[in-house]
Amino acid sequence: MQIALLGGTGDIGEGFAVRFSRDTEHDVIVGSRTAEKAANAAESYIETLDDHGVDATVADAENPEAARRGDVVILSVPAYYLSDTIEAVADNLGDAVLVSPAVGMQRDEDGLHYNRPGAGSVAQLAAEAAPAGTPVVGAFQNLAAAKLANLDADMDWDVPVTGDDPEAKATVMELADEVEGLRSLDAGGLANSTEIESLTPLLINLAANNDGLHDLGVKFW
Amino acid sequence: MQIALLGGTGDIGEGFAVRFSRDTEHDVIVGSRTAEKAANAAESYIETLDDHGVDATVADAENPEAARRGDVVILSVPAYYLSDTIEAVADNLGDAVLVSPAVGMQRDEDGLHYNRPGAGSVAQLAAEAAPAGTPVVGAFQNLAAAKLANLDADMDWDVPVTGDDPEAKATVMELADEVEGLRSLDAGGLANSTEIESLTPLLINLAANNDGLHDLGVKFW
Repeated sequence: MQIALLGGTGDIGEGFAVRFSRDTEHDVIVGSRTAEKAANAAESYIETLDDHGVDATVADAENPEAARRGDVVILSVPAYYLSDTIEAVADNLGDAVLVSPAVGMQRDEDGLHYNRPGAGSVAQLAAEAAPAGTPVVGAFQNLAAAKLANLDADMDWDVPVTGDDPEAKATVMELADEVEGLRSLDAGGLANSTEIESLTPLLINLAANNDGLHDLGVKFW
Repeated sequence: MQIALLGGTGDIGEGFAVRFSRDTEHDVIVGSRTAEKAANAAESYIETLDDHGVDATVADAENPEAARRGDVVILSVPAYYLSDTIEAVADNLGDAVLVSPAVGMQRDEDGLHYNRPGAGSVAQLAAEAAPAGTPVVGAFQNLAAAKLANLDADMDWDVPVTGDDPEAKATVMELADEVEGLRSLDAGGLANSTEIESLTPLLINLAANNDGLHDLGVKFW
């Protein structure tokens, strides 16, 4: 399977690239708005993987080309770039599975808060922006990017997954389960993404307010 | 310390009563709108404790009297009774710590969703309804009531706690930490309760959609 990381040059993109490359048989394509940034990031991820004894290829391309090649296309961009990013690749998505890991947040004096989009959630916003026929799945919103990108760090986290297309959701759940230390959970339809995205600012607030806690994820039991 | 459970005859009240009685040195007072319901519930909790080898006293009273005696007063009622319950006991609260564990939820075809009150959260709604000088703390929103009430069940859950009065928040965090299997976490100011309350419908949706998962709580790491 080809996994395209749109905006894959950022923190969360790095985490996806190195974990998928190390733990799965799938091919990773780092996408960016410029070919140069994509190539630089891919080179850096290959070095990181090599440092950890993993001989992996990481491809690179501009976002539209990455989207064209992806079976799974992950929107590894901040929430406020989401619609523009989808628009720029819409003609190339076909029936790829589009994955939304982004969360909109805003800070006030108490800490971070979930900034709920009018669509209900970022995942639903992605579904509104996506072309008809491209299924959208919400996943990976609660992963601490720095820890995900650190191959020396052990994770033991749950990944709640939402979607209205059962096959697309199953594809993403299997992908998550292939990553060491992640367990996918079925969280129902795409409209249930709201409460999953809301969890991310809570994780950040908890890390900010409690000594010894940082880069938090979540486990349900 | 005297812990008053307003509306303590329901599922979550039962859980608080038997866990606090078994695991802490504090005295529990079960409150209800009628003296008879309070007395029946207290009797039942004492039997449960006795069945588990715990010789504990559980007091009972109508809500206003329970509130008068409580150092910590827990609003163990559904969110839609919250304001009425506070109003009925307001003259008796004094400087007791008022605790809000309730979550407003509504069901649609995808499952349960957080029903955010206009105040921002149920805990903030409680603060609006509480008399001046009574500090409000948000806590215990993510505990599965049935498991909490089952003294044979081991818990290993986190309790994020919010509040704008540091001393009141510390009192509730210590109380949570005294219960076996609970770890309190400082989640910042009362306005951060929104994301904690949002987590509860997610826990219920995850239990509904995944075989083998039920009565879920959460652990952050």
